[in-house]
Order: sequence, then structure tokens, then C-alpha cells
Amino acid sequence: MGKCARHPERETRFQCLKHGTWMCEECLSCRDPELYCKNRSACPIWFIEKRRKRLQKEEQAAAALSRCRVTFEPSGKVVETVAGSSLLEAAAAADVHLNASCNGKGLCGKCKLVVASGNIESEPSALLSDDEIRKGYVLACQSRVTGDAVVRIPEETLERKLKVAGMGREATGRLQGLVAATEPMLREIPLDLSPPTIEDAVSDLDRLNRGLKRQDCDIEKLNVGIAVMRQLAEVMRESRWKVTASVVRRRCFNELLEVRPGNGTEPSLGLAIDVGTTTIVVYLVDMADGSVRAAASGHNRQAACGDDVINRIICAEKDGVQKLSGMALATINGLIGEALDSAGAHVRQVKNAVVAGNTVMTHLLLQIEPRYIRRAPYIPTVAEFPILKAGDIGLKAHPAAAVFVMPGPASFVGGDIVAGMLFAGFHREAPLTLFIDVGTNGEIVLGNREWLMTAACSAGPAFEGGGIRWGMRAEQGAIEKVVIHPGTLEPELATVGDEPPRGICGSGMIDLISELLSVGIIDRSGRFAADLNHARVRKVRDEWAYVLASAEQTPAGEDIVFTESDLKNLIYSKGAIYAGFTTLLKEAGLDFAGVERVLISGGFGQYLDIEKAVRIGLLPDIDRAKFHYLGNSSIAGAYLALISEAHRREARDICHNMTYIDFSSNPSYMDEFTSALFLPHTNLEMFPNVVRTGARGAGVVA
Amino acid sequence: MGKCARHPERETRFQCLKHGTWMCEECLSCRDPELYCKNRSACPIWFIEKRRKRLQKEEQAAAALSRCRVTFEPSGKVVETVAGSSLLEAAAAADVHLNASCNGKGLCGKCKLVVASGNIESEPSALLSDDEIRKGYVLACQSRVTGDAVVRIPEETLERKLKVAGMGREATGRLQGLVAATEPMLREIPLDLSPPTIEDAVSDLDRLNRGLKRQDCDIEKLNVGIAVMRQLAEVMRESRWKVTASVVRRRCFNELLEVRPGNGTEPSLGLAIDVGTTTIVVYLVDMADGSVRAAASGHNRQAACGDDVINRIICAEKDGVQKLSGMALATINGLIGEALDSAGAHVRQVKNAVVAGNTVMTHLLLQIEPRYIRRAPYIPTVAEFPILKAGDIGLKAHPAAAVFVMPGPASFVGGDIVAGMLFAGFHREAPLTLFIDVGTNGEIVLGNREWLMTAACSAGPAFEGGGIRWGMRAEQGAIEKVVIHPGTLEPELATVGDEPPRGICGSGMIDLISELLSVGIIDRSGRFAADLNHARVRKVRDEWAYVLASAEQTPAGEDIVFTESDLKNLIYSKGAIYAGFTTLLKEAGLDFAGVERVLISGGFGQYLDIEKAVRIGLLPDIDRAKFHYLGNSSIAGAYLALISEAHRREARDICHNMTYIDFSSNPSYMDEFTSALFLPHTNLEMFPNVVRTGARGAGVVA
Repeated sequence: MGKCARHPERETRFQCLKHGTWMCEECLSCRDPELYCKNRSACPIWFIEKRRKRLQKEEQAAAALSRCRVTFEPSGKVVETVAGSSLLEAAAAADVHLNASCNGKGLCGKCKLVVASGNIESEPSALLSDDEIRKGYVLACQSRVTGDAVVRIPEETLERKLKVAGMGREATGRLQGLVAATEPMLREIPLDLSPPTIEDAVSDLDRLNRGLKRQDCDIEKLNVGIAVMRQLAEVMRESRWKVTASVVRRRCFNELLEVRPGNGTEPSLGLAIDVGTTTIVVYLVDMADGSVRAAASGHNRQAACGDDVINRIICAEKDGVQKLSGMALATINGLIGEALDSAGAHVRQVKNAVVAGNTVMTHLLLQIEPRYIRRAPYIPTVAEFPILKAGDIGLKAHPAAAVFVMPGPASFVGGDIVAGMLFAGFHREAPLTLFIDVGTNGEIVLGNREWLMTAACSAGPAFEGGGIRWGMRAEQGAIEKVVIHPGTLEPELATVGDEPPRGICGSGMIDLISELLSVGIIDRSGRFAADLNHARVRKVRDEWAYVLASAEQTPAGEDIVFTESDLKNLIYSKGAIYAGFTTLLKEAGLDFAGVERVLISGGFGQYLDIEKAVRIGLLPDIDRAKFHYLGNSSIAGAYLALISEAHRREARDICHNMTYIDFSSNPSYMDEFTSALFLPHTNLEMFPNVVRTGARGAGVVA
Repeated sequence: MGKCARHPERETRFQCLKHGTWMCEECLSCRDPELYCKNRSACPIWFIEKRRKRLQKEEQAAAALSRCRVTFEPSGKVVETVAGSSLLEAAAAADVHLNASCNGKGLCGKCKLVVASGNIESEPSALLSDDEIRKGYVLACQSRVTGDAVVRIPEETLERKLKVAGMGREATGRLQGLVAATEPMLREIPLDLSPPTIEDAVSDLDRLNRGLKRQDCDIEKLNVGIAVMRQLAEVMRESRWKVTASVVRRRCFNELLEVRPGNGTEPSLGLAIDVGTTTIVVYLVDMADGSVRAAASGHNRQAACGDDVINRIICAEKDGVQKLSGMALATINGLIGEALDSAGAHVRQVKNAVVAGNTVMTHLLLQIEPRYIRRAPYIPTVAEFPILKAGDIGLKAHPAAAVFVMPGPASFVGGDIVAGMLFAGFHREAPLTLFIDVGTNGEIVLGNREWLMTAACSAGPAFEGGGIRWGMRAEQGAIEKVVIHPGTLEPELATVGDEPPRGICGSGMIDLISELLSVGIIDRSGRFAADLNHARVRKVRDEWAYVLASAEQTPAGEDIVFTESDLKNLIYSKGAIYAGFTTLLKEAGLDFAGVERVLISGGFGQYLDIEKAVRIGLLPDIDRAKFHYLGNSSIAGAYLALISEAHRREARDICHNMTYIDFSSNPSYMDEFTSALFLPHTNLEMFPNVVRTGARGAGVVA
């Protein structure tokens, strides 16, 4: 009961369900909108009690008249929407993920869709090429639904997503070629069983086992859990004794994870997941042929708890490991959803998954105690995992999906490195190789098929954008190439996707430092020249900085600058990595002369300029032909382990065969680090080619 | 806020917390009981707001003065109670189970306790012997606590409970002798691990595995679940690297179920559980030496859903299998709690369990679909179970406790029969044996070490008391022996525990029918003689009945009678069982002459009179020396499987080697059944000795 909004002396039981306004019978019956809901001028009003139902019916009838069905291909998702709403809104309602950086303003041009058929009215946009317009492209945010329609998410979306997520379609195609035979963890065995009779009255489970045995499944080694038993009777009868059994291969036994009705083939999907401290990448893979059906990548939500693994552990100690696990899962599951959407696939089809991550990421994800990783003697709880069930760890997949977690040999050299090595493959070959992964940490592996040594240096996340004011990962709009004109000191920039600059990624930073040094804006110790009197070199919040892009060039409407603190952070990072090389070589009794190959992995972006990386002292000054850039090798290795049992076995072997060198207790590492805090190094004898050939930078280097 | 009960015009915020009466400040401050709570004349009154706390404090202080601590041995449970409360109330508050049939009236004498020390004031009772009084026995319900005290549950309680639960202490002692070496499913491995160092920085799990390997645990075959991993780091450090690992042996692999801090020995307990349709029995066993520490038995709460397995299935189809599972678990877990209490043990010590039950009971308990058991062709979902975890099935034990479920060969011959055979052991020997279990159903096994045939007949639960007006299981007060004087027709009764008669159990019913037949009160077709004109033979609710005990003799204060309908039910049951014998022998091409041994198992009670069982036609008329009564063989077999791996393997072998004969599709079974619906049988040639020697009964039999 309430008091009428217009006649407060009157108690009434009628209230607008939408706006909460009370009104008496008189006000109600006259139906003057003015009387009703002051909240809105024209309120589509409902009332409680008897009127409610009638009015709801009227409302529904009216709405049905103007409802339109929009189908999104290739997923085939259908959504009903009110005529006049935008395609972007319809996509959101259908839970179809569209990238819309400008939030529907028609500025970023990322929400491109192809109208296959139906009634869509679009505004013209300069962001569409003539060719695209001919092919039916529209911007979803600039298109209104006026009737039923079918729209398609264009194919190049996958290619773009693949690139952002680590490698392009061509590269993933090559990956596929590395595997002789696809062999998922989860074997799906279709069975056609004979129905029971009085003469053949064995139990349902025995009948199933008999069928499995005929399909060469070792039932002596088969374990069946209570959950499967509980559904067995119905499943077998529902499909008239035609069923499909999902059996996962474990090290010492097999497990029957699920029995589903029907023995027809159903596309089986797998997930390769690279859980980085900063970035998470997901590939959705067709387990039948190993093709990548979709890809997605995004920032690890744990970033809210700090940039590096140590801060994540501290946060887990404070707030509980469940919180951090939940954050990683939220990111991963969001990306899985996105990938499933764009492939038009269903979560229950995902029956296999491989997770590659550093040791801390793996512990946090699985809710395993991480606190002893950061305390001497730096002990992980678990290095090698049995195959887990997706349902047990909260991964968005079929609850019985088999999850292989990449084993990690040490607290600071984890499964992401093992995955990278799987892809790089130097552990199978003769040449002495230095493998380096620069992500949020710097991990190094030295060795060949005879022996493997590994170590980690706390490089920090600078090259992934962490702690750098305008730092970002190699996403659309990231500055990935920089050339500074020595005369004008004006920069020439190249960005990912040729978009307006939004920040600077790892490869861009390496270019930039090398160029700043080369043109003399900074000196070898990382100090800015204070006397240049140039518009590009100025103080920003009390410290010197170089202006890469001015406000009017950037979508954010702010100057993109690179400051002295940014530079300092990067010099620390590169110094930590270079000191890692020299210390590990010293431990092995070698020097750079013996290294036949340097493989570089990590989130620098696509165009790592090796020459410039040597010039700033991140990489050693050896024959440039020895360097190879691998991109995101962790996701590549996760992919290989996903589709091949041989690679999963190999991952365990790599893990067992590596010798871990602890730098924290190694006094020579600190010396090496201090020496490496110059550009390129305190000891220029280590960089003879830089000194000799550094034409433009010679004056600075000397 | 409320209105004062005495001054309704006054709003007040004071309310009696006990009776809800509102009163104003004036009423409150004068504290006249009349004003306050009309509900009671003298109300110990509390008020909300400020007064509450003060009054609560006063109350607590007063209560503390009169609080007494009562300790219950052997469990050592302590409870605080108000002076003046009875020991029975104190026991209930301490969650110590005492049998108190008369509900505290001092009539049944079952709540006997020994006062070890302290202040207990007891009423004298004729139910205590002089010897008991000397030893400090009291009736808990007739004793008031007047200060701190220590009381002890007497040792003979276990002996009594063991007898009720299947067999006495002596018999369980003999059982222990049948096992050469105790070998639990769960192996507890104490480990003393070396702490990690920088040089030895393997993961916690690897360190544990290394320790297990030294203790001859096959770590290649060891599976570790995510739950164990999650607790590992803390457990290992909490106890400074001294831990105990619990490893369960499965058919094809081992599983690490738990790692607990400390490597000292902790008593490890096991449960043997016989889940009968009517009665559930639990033994609590010390896994170190196999001794039975406690026993408990009770009615299966599923009885609310019908007496027999078919009705239980129907109920599960209607209300869901979870409901039936919950009922069985409530009974079982209650009994486990009782057993733990009387042994003074803790639930976390229970690490092993064996469940024996018929196929329907097992399915219902484990929430596995039972509906196809009752429909042709009568298919169970699962016949043989892997070792389960107590936590997964809701059993009151350590959540990681290993649970072995007795395998059952067919829908109507289950794990209880296999357990019984384990105990009987005839499948290891040469003589041709007929094994019969009369519980809620009648299951029969015929064979020897060469071959085994089995079948089930729907005998119904009559011999367990089901469908019999005063029927009960062989508990305290059950009439287990009956002799009727042929001249006076007056009965002589013997009851379990020599208590006043409360009902009649299986062996009593067999005696009774035989005697009724012998003295001519009933005829061979089961009709009562209408012309006796005797006070003991009279109509009760329109049908003839024999009065076994008159109202003044019984605790219930009612006549215990045996009616014509009761008799009819029992004739059906015995007929079904006898027809089972003859049909199964016919299937095997044999007759009774070839049977060298008849083993009888089931809930008849302790004193099954074989001669009388033959006279009524329940057992065949062969050499009486061939008959052996086993008692509750199912709990005995469960016990053997609990403590011995050899017996667990044997259970599986028995299950695989039995041939099941389905009577429902067997036309000759119906003929045999119809012929057996006389006392002893239609065909008297089958009972030559009964005809010849039946001195007293000759006239009737002829």
C-alpha cells in the first residue's frame, strides 16, 4: 500500500511497476500520462493487481509488431530486437562479441560486419573502403535494424585476432604441419551396443566395458567415477544403446570421463591457453584436423593485484588464492567465450585443453599455494600435474574436458618456457642455443640435445608495457617501429594495424631507445640532454621526456611521451636479461663465441629490430644471422601439446632434463647486472660491432 | 516497537524475549510478574534494549554457579549441564547415545551407566542387580547430576550391541582369526622428508613422491588429485616435513588421497556396513589388529518408502533417488556416530569402509539409477564398483576414506550374498552346498568350488518382521522361542535378553507356526481351528489369532497376538523360498539328495530351530546334521573384506563366477511355489521324516 502521488490523502494498492509511482483508482482510470509517472513524460505504464496482466498483454502485442530477428553468422546465433536498435546493441544482446573501441561512436571502425541479407539501414562511413562497401560491409554501431536480417562476422577478423594473439593464420598453419598425427588426450569412442535380454543381463557398466574392449580400450586400466555411473542407465537407454564414451589417457591409467547419448560424430574442440602474467591468449582448435578455428587475447585481470608475479603472490597471501584464481579464470573464460562465439561453437564441444603459464600463474589458476615460491629456497608446490578435469578447476569447457598443464621445472622457470621450447625444438638438435623469453620476467635456457640449463632474471614487465607510462602490448595502435630524424629530431612511427597511435609496445621501445641514443637525445647512462631546446624534448611532470605523438594525433587526445623514468625501467630490464646471459654462460664455462643460435620469444611485437636490440645492449653483439625471433612461443607450444601426445610426453621430458641455476644466490649475477646498466654496456669491449659500425651513433657511443 | 500489554495507548520498545509480551517503562520498572508475561505466572523475564545485557549477565552468573561438568568414558566427551538435570539429559547434550526404550521412565533398564567418580544422586531401581549396585551401576534416567562427575558406559554394552548387530564378541573374535594378515585399502605411509634447500629445490610434490618411493610406493602408478595439491604446501611445512600419506590401492593404479601433518601413528579405523532393506548394521573395526571396537544396528529409514526393494525403486522413481539415498545415509551415519561415540573415536580416524548390500540398496545408497532393476530384463546399472571416496558418497568417515562396495552378480542377488559367501567359504570347498539368505528377500546359491548358481525369490520381509502385526527383528524383547503346551495350549516364551516381550522375531515365528500346527490350533492350509473355545485363541479385529502374551506382560500394555493374515504371509514367504530350492536344483539337474550342506543366513535371530523350520516346510526334510545357521553373514563378509585384500579380490572372483537363474521367466518356479503353500508342503513325500517322526503333530500332518 502507498499514498497516491497526486492525492496523498488516499491510500492505494496500485503502483507503476516500472517507476514505482503510486496512484489511486481515479488517477489510474483516467490514464493521463501526466498523472502517472513523474519520472518520464510518456511512461509505458504497468500496474500491479488486475491491470497488470492486461497491460502486459497489450505491451507484448505492441512489441511483437516491431520485433526483428537478427541472425549472426557463422555462429548462427539469433536475437530478437526492437526495430530501430543498432546492430551493435543486437550483437551485445546475442552475446556476440564485437570489438568496439570507440564505444559505438563510429570512430574506430572495428565493429565491421557484412550484411548477408535483410533490412539494415547504415550510415555511410569513411572508415569503409569502396571494396568493403561493395562487399556489404557496414559498421555495426552505425547500422539500424529495420526488419529481420542475417549478418556475418567477416573472415579477416580471425586473421587479425590470430595476429594479436601471437601469430597469424599462415604461422598457425605452419604449426599444424609440425604434428604428424593429431592425438587428443580425450579419446571419443562411438559404440553400438546390443540391448540387454534375460539371457544377456549384465549390468549397464559391464555392457559398456564390453563395447569399449572391442574398440581396443584397455578396460583393465579404466577407472570410472561415481558421476558417470549415476548418469549411465539413462544415457544408454535414451539413445537406444548407441553411445559415445570419452576416455582420457593418463600416465598410468585411463579414465572414463563421460558417456553421452548417440554415437554420431560431433566436432570436438580443444583450447590452447597461454596464461601470461600480463596477457592471456586462447586458441580454439578443431581436434579433428588441428586447424585454429578462433583466437582471442586480453589482459590478465590479476593485473589489478600488481604487475609482477611477486606482487600476485603477496596479494594471494593477503586475500586468498581463490581471488587470484577467480581473476585469471574470469579473463580466460571470457576469452574462451569470445572464441566460441566467433567460431559459432558450443562450450560442451570443448573436450581438451592445454594451459601454459609460468609457475606462479599455474599455481594461482589452480588455487595451489604459491607463497613458498617467493621465499628462499623458492619451492613450487607442484611442478608436474596429472591431467585435470575442466570442471574441477573452473575452466569454461565441457566439465569432463581433459586439461593438460604444462610442467614447469622451477619456481621461476615455468610451463610457458617448456611450451616455448616445444615449439623452438632446439632441445632436439645439436647447435648450442640460447633461448630467451622476455615477458613479464626474463627466462633463459642454454643448451642443446645434450644438456639444458635454465635460469630466470627479474627483468620486470617493462617490455610488455608494465611500468612504462604509455607502454602497452603489441595490440592495434601500438607504436612498434620508431625512426628519429637526426636533423629534425622528428619521429617516424609505425603502429600495429596502421591505426592512430595509442601507446608503445616492446619493439617500439627498443627502436626508440636506440634512436634516442643515436641522435643524442639521451646519453649512455640514460640521462636526457637538457640543452636541446626542442619541442619534442621537454619536461613532463618534472622529468625529461620525448614526445612521440601529439595530442591531436592520438585517439586519447593526449601526448604520447617517453620519460626518463620509463628509460630507467627499461635499462634495468635489459640489464637484468643481459646479465642473465653472461652469468648462465659463465656457469656453463662458455662465452658468447660458443653460442650458435639465439632464439627470442616474448611479447615485443611483430617487428623486433635485432640490430637496435643489440645497440641498446639487450642482445649480445654477435653475428646477426644467429638471431631468430619466435613471437609468442608459449601459445605455439601449448597448441602442439594440445593436438599431439608426443609433444605432451616431450614436455615432461624437457622438464626433467633441465638444470636450474638460481641467480638469487649467485654473487656474480649482481656484478654482471650492475655492469649492464649502461647503453649498451659498461664494458664496450663486449660490443665491438656496435662501436665500430655505429655510424650515426658513433659519437654517442664513443 | 509495540503497545504495552497493560497500557495499550503507550508505545514501547521493551519486550519480553521469552514470551513476546510488550510493556512500558512504568510496568517494566515495577517488576510485578503479573504485569509482564501473561503466558506464565512467574516468568524469568528478559527485555530487549539495555536491560537485556544486564539480565543476561545475571542469568549467566547464576547458571555458572550451578553448572556441573559430566565426563563420559570411554569417549572422554565432556558436557556442562545444570545441576539437577538427569544423566540421560546430560548424555543427550553430550551427543552420547544411550538406549532408552522407555524414554526416561525408569522402566526398561537399558540406560545403565557406571559412576566412576563425582556427584550423582540416583533413585534405587529393581532393574539393577546387587552385583551391579556394588559396581556402581545406575540408571541414567533415574540419576541427577549434583556436581562434576565421571561416568562410564559399561563394557557389556558392546557385547550386547554386537549380538543385536549380528554376532557376539566371541564370534567376531573367531572372524578375526579367519584373516592371515590385515591389509587395509588405504595404506598410511609415514614420511620423514628432508627440508628443501637451494641445491635441492624440487617441488613439494616431487619431494613427497621421492619419500613415497623410498617406502616402496609405486609412484609411477600414483595419481594425485587437485585437492591434495592444494593443501600440500601447508601440510608439509606445518609439521616440519614429517607427514603421513594415505594411498589407496586401486585395481590399476594407486591414488594419493590425503597428506596429513605428522608421521606419528594414529589409530586407523574401518567400517563394515551391512545395508539391509530392513536393518542396517555397522561394525567399527581397529585396522591395526582387526578387533571390533563397537557395533550398532538400526532400522533402515527407507522403510518409510515401503518394505521391499520394489517399493523402494518405485519411490525413487517418484521422489528421486537422492531422497532414498539420504534416508539410508541418515541411518548409516547415525549408526556410525553411535559406534564412534561408544568407542570414544573420531570420525577422521575412519579411513576404510566396506559396504555390503543387495543391488537395490547399493544403487540407492550411491544414487545410481535403480529403475531398470525392476523392469524386464532386470538390469542393474553397475555390478562392480571401483573403490570410492567416502566424501563423494556422503558416508560419515574421513572424506578421503576408501570405500569398497561389495560387487553383486545380478539385480536380485547382490553384494550382501557375495559377502555372506565370503564368510561361509563353501565356494573354496568340494561339498555341494545350498546357501540361503532369508532377509527381506530370499536369495539362494547352489554350488561348490567347481561351479556356482544363484537365484532370488520374492520371499518378502515376513521373517524380518515385515507385514507381521507384532513382527520385529531379533532385538531386545523379541520372542525368539515358543513352546505351546499341547494340553493347556498355553505358551512358554523366551525373549532376546530375557526382557518382557515386545514382539516376535523370525525364529520365534517358525517355532510358533510349528507349535500351532503341532497342537492343532491351525491346520496344514493355515486356517485356525474355530471350535477350540480357548482364551488364547480368539478373534482380533475380525480374524482369528493366537494370543502370545497378554497386555499386562508387555511393555506396550497390549496383547501380542499372531493372526491368520500373519500366518498367510509367512506361508507365502516360506513357500517362495522352498520353491526356490527345488527350482534351482532342477536347473542344475539335481535334487536334495545331492546336497551335502545347507547354510542358512539371515535375520531369524539367534536360536533358529532347524527341526521346526523343516516341520513348517521352510527347509527341506534332509539329515539335520547338514544344516548350519550362520547368523548375519553379510556383516561378517563385509568385515573380512574390510581387513583383507585377499577377501576383496575373492569377492570380485565370486561375483564373476556365479551363474544367475532368473525365476521370473521360469515357468516351473510358479508350479513349485503353488505346491509349497501348505504346511509343510502339498506333496508330503518330500517330507518323509516329518510325517514319520512328527509324534505330536502326526495327527495334524496325516
